[in-house]
Amino acid sequence: MRSVQDHLGAVLAAVGPVAPLDVALHDAVGCILARDLVAPRDLPAVAVAARDGYAVAAFETEGAGYASTLTLPVAHDLRAGAATELRLAPGQAVRVASGAPVPLGADAVVPLEETDRGAVRFAMQRPAAAGQHVRPAGADVHAGEVVLAAGTRLGARQIALAAALGFGRLHVHPTPRVVLLSVGDELAEPGSSRPAQGAVFEADGHALDAAVRDAGATPVRVGILPDDRHVLREALEDQLVRADLVVVTGGLSELAGDTVKDVLATLGTVRLDHVAMTPGFRHGFGKVGGERGEDRAVPLFALQGDPVAAQVSFEVFVRPALRAMAGHTELYRPSVAARASHGWAAPVGLRQFVPATVLGTPDEGYRVTPLGDPGAPTVSALAHANALAVVGEQDTVVHAGQTVHCLVLEG
Amino acid sequence: MRSVQDHLGAVLAAVGPVAPLDVALHDAVGCILARDLVAPRDLPAVAVAARDGYAVAAFETEGAGYASTLTLPVAHDLRAGAATELRLAPGQAVRVASGAPVPLGADAVVPLEETDRGAVRFAMQRPAAAGQHVRPAGADVHAGEVVLAAGTRLGARQIALAAALGFGRLHVHPTPRVVLLSVGDELAEPGSSRPAQGAVFEADGHALDAAVRDAGATPVRVGILPDDRHVLREALEDQLVRADLVVVTGGLSELAGDTVKDVLATLGTVRLDHVAMTPGFRHGFGKVGGERGEDRAVPLFALQGDPVAAQVSFEVFVRPALRAMAGHTELYRPSVAARASHGWAAPVGLRQFVPATVLGTPDEGYRVTPLGDPGAPTVSALAHANALAVVGEQDTVVHAGQTVHCLVLEG
Repeated sequence: MRSVQDHLGAVLAAVGPVAPLDVALHDAVGCILARDLVAPRDLPAVAVAARDGYAVAAFETEGAGYASTLTLPVAHDLRAGAATELRLAPGQAVRVASGAPVPLGADAVVPLEETDRGAVRFAMQRPAAAGQHVRPAGADVHAGEVVLAAGTRLGARQIALAAALGFGRLHVHPTPRVVLLSVGDELAEPGSSRPAQGAVFEADGHALDAAVRDAGATPVRVGILPDDRHVLREALEDQLVRADLVVVTGGLSELAGDTVKDVLATLGTVRLDHVAMTPGFRHGFGKVGGERGEDRAVPLFALQGDPVAAQVSFEVFVRPALRAMAGHTELYRPSVAARASHGWAAPVGLRQFVPATVLGTPDEGYRVTPLGDPGAPTVSALAHANALAVVGEQDTVVHAGQTVHCLVLEG
Repeated sequence: MRSVQDHLGAVLAAVGPVAPLDVALHDAVGCILARDLVAPRDLPAVAVAARDGYAVAAFETEGAGYASTLTLPVAHDLRAGAATELRLAPGQAVRVASGAPVPLGADAVVPLEETDRGAVRFAMQRPAAAGQHVRPAGADVHAGEVVLAAGTRLGARQIALAAALGFGRLHVHPTPRVVLLSVGDELAEPGSSRPAQGAVFEADGHALDAAVRDAGATPVRVGILPDDRHVLREALEDQLVRADLVVVTGGLSELAGDTVKDVLATLGTVRLDHVAMTPGFRHGFGKVGGERGEDRAVPLFALQGDPVAAQVSFEVFVRPALRAMAGHTELYRPSVAARASHGWAAPVGLRQFVPATVLGTPDEGYRVTPLGDPGAPTVSALAHANALAVVGEQDTVVHAGQTVHCLVLEG
């Protein structure tokens, strides 16, 4: 029997960030930048107007005051994207749209709203301050600057900066592709009109499809496979080319024929263990494939088919592995310490994960209530939980009021 | 000039949840359930074994003790998915795989690990307790029970429950489809090999593509359109059929020809306002299309093309609207009160949004530091911020140590 800690350690030692790739901006969203992004140019490239208005030389507007209106002739109109060679002639102004280049010799923009909006000449009521409503070249970013460091997660605001600098592709750790296989003669697809008597609706593949996306990775749900060694082997071999990770659920029952165990024994280095936890004590992890060099060997998890066991195992082992493969340094969900609303029994020697509701605030503290029977957690309890209460291997009981470590789940 | 509060109120009054639809489980992930989900059957449908082992009548195992081994003959093997008519004969056992139906007359499962694993007869060391390792019919869910209430967000754990109950499709508010149009003659696609002199790389569409996904909606980035009324009108008319919401960025400059204003004036009821905020004071919002009945009129936002203004406006108005359209009741990002690390000036009469870094913990309190010049926020500052500091319309200065309200951004 292997401890949760040892098994997680073995998993994390075996996986690493997916090899970096240049991807289009759309595909880079949510990914981790694989190397520093260096500005190839100033941003903005030239001084631009921050408002619709008139570009002027500020010192020429000193005569404008509350008592005396100053008027200047308008020599040109410039829109955003206009060429930038224009030089302001002394005593003149250039009408500029927001985003347009400010002509050489101009150092201020008088907003339309502060003028009479004249097209040939315009009148202003007070002097302009040098620099007002002008974004100088390089005001955002100077060429050569590291604008985003390797390791940065690319959200909307980072994508905006990269796009503004002209990057159409970014060098990132792509999101891991996770192939999901559900094994079991008893399984029927949800929504099937006439499931066989005794059939069990397939929940794991659908749940893990959602969980993989929530972890920021890309699921490929292959669907239901029978307890058939030949079919499972073929499906695995077919899927390995597109997988960064494979998760097999079900097929681990000794009495159902050890399908998964037998197939994996011939395909790679997957090790089957009993892990000291509940729910879900049977675990397979290792690598499969890789004849073309160890680098292409693909990590594989085999999880018990019971949906609660599969989901808890996903949270405890697969999700941190996926986060590491995506290049994240923060692998774990947030956790809080919460006081138990009432007590329950825990099995000796096993780490117990209990679907639970955590309520409270950082100020007042948190309170945790297990949902259903902590000894037999249900799919329903898990669906209503917002956390997993974690009871250590040494504890045989949780007392009311005791502080319990809780993993906070999404939603 | 309209206040931020009034504009947000008008926006939220005009949008509502997207009409519910039956969608496949995969497409329901992240959506809000539109009506209560009622269990059509018990879960499990029959009593099943929770472990690989032997199904027995507990009272017949009373003779097993630490001193005396009890052996029972094995009458059958049952795997998960087996038909369920079997009845246990007195004095016998049935070998059951985890997930297999427990025969009538049996009320306990003796785990393999506690036996000699015999196939014809097996030996056990201690009595079984009635109910042990058996999940009775309905242990998870009873037929007729509301298992998920309307309004529930469907994550992995809720999808697992729905799938286990046999639902292949769910009635949800589908994720809103958001059409993104970027208007401006000056715009060039990032990655273009030879942008024209003076060109500006298109950042808004790419940034909002990511921001829309982060808000849980589905972006359709149409891309760059010139400042041409005819082209913009055609593009809008083409896209309306697939849009639940349209966001146009750029084309609001008075001096660039008011393209957006002119086109929208003929297409619907979009109103152009100055909203009392910075950055980004020009705002369009209303509905377009809808000749086939007011219901198909599509809400539309017109935002300034400056990437900082566009993103701040997205955060303040578009994101809450999208959340409401997706059926969420929680519309806003989390916010914290933080003490300013140093002071800065704020414009009178405008609500100021400042890219900022918020650090701290609930226990120690939070500290907010503006990034760059609060009066001229840059794309780069926004990319490095983890929050927007919000300064009220009445404040003309923020003092060091003053408490500032901060919207916490993702990442």
